[in-house]
Amino acid sequence: MNLSAEESRRRLAAAEVGRLATASAEGQPHLVVFTFAVEGDTLVTAIDHKPKRSMTALRRLQNIAENPQVSILVDHYEPDWERLWWARGDGMARILTEEADRRRPVELLVAKYPQYAERPPEGPVIEVTVARWSGWSYSPGG
Amino acid sequence: MNLSAEESRRRLAAAEVGRLATASAEGQPHLVVFTFAVEGDTLVTAIDHKPKRSMTALRRLQNIAENPQVSILVDHYEPDWERLWWARGDGMARILTEEADRRRPVELLVAKYPQYAERPPEGPVIEVTVARWSGWSYSPGG
Repeated sequence: MNLSAEESRRRLAAAEVGRLATASAEGQPHLVVFTFAVEGDTLVTAIDHKPKRSMTALRRLQNIAENPQVSILVDHYEPDWERLWWARGDGMARILTEEADRRRPVELLVAKYPQYAERPPEGPVIEVTVARWSGWSYSPGG
Repeated sequence: MNLSAEESRRRLAAAEVGRLATASAEGQPHLVVFTFAVEGDTLVTAIDHKPKRSMTALRRLQNIAENPQVSILVDHYEPDWERLWWARGDGMARILTEEADRRRPVELLVAKYPQYAERPPEGPVIEVTVARWSGWSYSPGG
């Protein structure tokens, strides 16, 4: 069964880890596992450390600079396939490097992940404005 | 630490579930959770049921028909971030619909997943020729 946009958003926001797909200008998809926080229809993630060379040294940042379209997926897998579900957010990303812009996203990440409390992320923030939340669950209660 | 291509391939092949990123001709990424099997540098997955309308009714099939570049990710997450690892395969996909072409992929899927033994997938097979296996682990033994 399909999940409502609100239920998809709720499940995605509650997950500890997700996968982020970006694509280059030439349409080469790139996939990373990532931590994130959600506030309303905004999803944020951050690069842990300041990139050594340029802001676009990482493929995900380079792709977003070329093509802001992104997709984010969270899923639950068990050998009992009747318990499968997934939730997805599709939207447009932008990269925030100014301290004033990074403040709120980093607050949200530190609030969600105790691991960040000791060492907040120092690198660029990726802010995704989600245009569409969708999801699916094998069973209604799954 | 980066994992070798062989170790990345081994970890990805052993996983029960992965995520598949495709992109439309316009570079819109699409992300799904999926089951798969690996033989050498070939990764296969199948649509469970014959699509109701056309072979390209599903976004992943439509994207591959437009743009065969795909990325596949498997990851291991724990709250202890020192135990994180991921493995990725990047390559080119094609869609197999002829019974003769589907036979070996479906055999591989049924051999890996007991859930498929009762009800083998009936839909098109996606066959990915992986050009690059890569991976990362926080700690050497992780």
